[in-house]
Amino acid sequence: MANRVTLADVAALAGVHPGTVSRALSAKTENQVNAATVRKVRRAAKQLGYTPNAMARGLRTRLSMTVGVIVPDLTNPIFPPMVRGIDSYLLPRGYSALVVNTDGSDETERTVFESLLARQVDGFIVATGHTHHRLMAEAQERGVLVVMVNRDAHGVRYPAVTGDDSLGIKEIFAHLVALGHSRIVHLAGPAGFSTSEIREEAFRAACEQFSVTGRVLPTSAYSIDAGQAAMDILLDGPAEGFTAVVAGNDLLALGAYHSLRQHGMVCPDDMSVVGFNDMPFAGDFFPPMTTVRVSHFDMGAEAARLLLAQIEAPESTALAVRLPVSLVVRGSTAPAKR
Amino acid sequence: MANRVTLADVAALAGVHPGTVSRALSAKTENQVNAATVRKVRRAAKQLGYTPNAMARGLRTRLSMTVGVIVPDLTNPIFPPMVRGIDSYLLPRGYSALVVNTDGSDETERTVFESLLARQVDGFIVATGHTHHRLMAEAQERGVLVVMVNRDAHGVRYPAVTGDDSLGIKEIFAHLVALGHSRIVHLAGPAGFSTSEIREEAFRAACEQFSVTGRVLPTSAYSIDAGQAAMDILLDGPAEGFTAVVAGNDLLALGAYHSLRQHGMVCPDDMSVVGFNDMPFAGDFFPPMTTVRVSHFDMGAEAARLLLAQIEAPESTALAVRLPVSLVVRGSTAPAKR
Repeated sequence: MANRVTLADVAALAGVHPGTVSRALSAKTENQVNAATVRKVRRAAKQLGYTPNAMARGLRTRLSMTVGVIVPDLTNPIFPPMVRGIDSYLLPRGYSALVVNTDGSDETERTVFESLLARQVDGFIVATGHTHHRLMAEAQERGVLVVMVNRDAHGVRYPAVTGDDSLGIKEIFAHLVALGHSRIVHLAGPAGFSTSEIREEAFRAACEQFSVTGRVLPTSAYSIDAGQAAMDILLDGPAEGFTAVVAGNDLLALGAYHSLRQHGMVCPDDMSVVGFNDMPFAGDFFPPMTTVRVSHFDMGAEAARLLLAQIEAPESTALAVRLPVSLVVRGSTAPAKR
Repeated sequence: MANRVTLADVAALAGVHPGTVSRALSAKTENQVNAATVRKVRRAAKQLGYTPNAMARGLRTRLSMTVGVIVPDLTNPIFPPMVRGIDSYLLPRGYSALVVNTDGSDETERTVFESLLARQVDGFIVATGHTHHRLMAEAQERGVLVVMVNRDAHGVRYPAVTGDDSLGIKEIFAHLVALGHSRIVHLAGPAGFSTSEIREEAFRAACEQFSVTGRVLPTSAYSIDAGQAAMDILLDGPAEGFTAVVAGNDLLALGAYHSLRQHGMVCPDDMSVVGFNDMPFAGDFFPPMTTVRVSHFDMGAEAARLLLAQIEAPESTALAVRLPVSLVVRGSTAPAKR
């Protein structure tokens, strides 16, 4: 940067403390400074030829060039490509990602979050979003920079990068209805996550739209075991003529495979199964899984882009980005059994 | 700890600089101090009632309670369970793991290593081992605490936790030979890794032992694509009567599946395929994969245990731990085609 004017110069010209300059020039914190002072600081900054970007960089003299990435379950294959997407954006820009796995525990999440803050990371990419996410609400009050990824949180004004889940469910229905399915089960993701909520809501809406008889089976986690347990409940009783399963994600769909096999049923002959995510290996399962593709690599890269934009210009607008999805038809869906 | 004697107390009693006490009391660094001084410091420490453990804790006043975990490729499904194993040992003890993915790049590895050192991690668990690993040799010279996991490095005296690869290959051969296979291909892991070297060596030894005609096909990476490319080379030519493939890991085996399918061949009818690792989902592939189970969760937990032992008592003996393995027979192996 050619501009070598320091924060102290702006403070001196405006006749205020450097900390006041910092607060006055960030959209996040300017309300902590009275309006007249904000105007005075802005005038001084303009006079000295500060651009917002250069200012942001100047103010943050202790940039650590590291980003904390908080992931709920690394063994869910959607997360590693997301981490690689994050790295693909960060590394060429001199940043690196420190990844922590919370195993779905709020307590662990809080511990690692504080630990990373103490290590002075410049911001977070958070994939552990809950719909009611206390830690994120607190983080926002403390002025911590965060981008939510995959899962969003209610009532938190952080940028979020998600897939277009509603569209995905609609595409699944168009496919299944064309195959003659009119009674469809939803293995719903666990409560408390935006992905579960949006997909279930979209499932109910699609049942209406396509005149399909739907049934929602709740699950306790986004895992193979939880999917199998929920599906067992359906198959242990009378199947009630259901011919297709729309799973909340690919792991739940894989659990449905296991349950069908244990009940002597064949997918897709006896029951079609659709996943969600197109996670790595989805095409290698037996049968190869029909699912909705979401690029988790792109999701990670986009989240990293939004975070660095905020680090370099905290006053920049917080955007919500919704990535496109597409149905990938493989071998787990077939015409409805009559 | 009841013991409240400080490092300065030992230094004062011994009449030396506190840094000298630190060096004199660590097996790693005592050779930097002359022998008479080491004896003097030890006497002072003993007199004040220091135990090695308490000393280690006392010396490291800036323990960050974080561990850096360096992984070559998070999208290889063996690594996420390893990270969870690491967490399973660290978290209950107040430590947390900061995971970085190097994507196999030495440059990235160096960058993140330095970045984590600057964040004052207490030590590293390194899964990116190369047989000739310059960074690890340097780390050792600098006194950085490291435990190698899965892959070992030559000429570095760090503790290493690995699977019993030789035994795994032997068990594969016993199984294949019992099925009548006498011409077997090895999709060897990429050069420069201890896992590749040991498995290939064991393959050659087993060919001798079981009077099998072997052929080694090199691959460029532990990936599906690399496995497929190597297998294509075999199948594009005359197959030379080979009836079984022993792959360097499960991803290479999956690549062999893809190649066979593209060449109109059926596994296991036309060709048996065996993987290595029993990575997550190996039983869900088509066909379900016969492979050697190594518990990467246990591997991670064991590495974390060894690292914390060193952090708390740097003079403790550096152990090499070899974990047991077992053959898991599934659907990708069958009697040799005559």
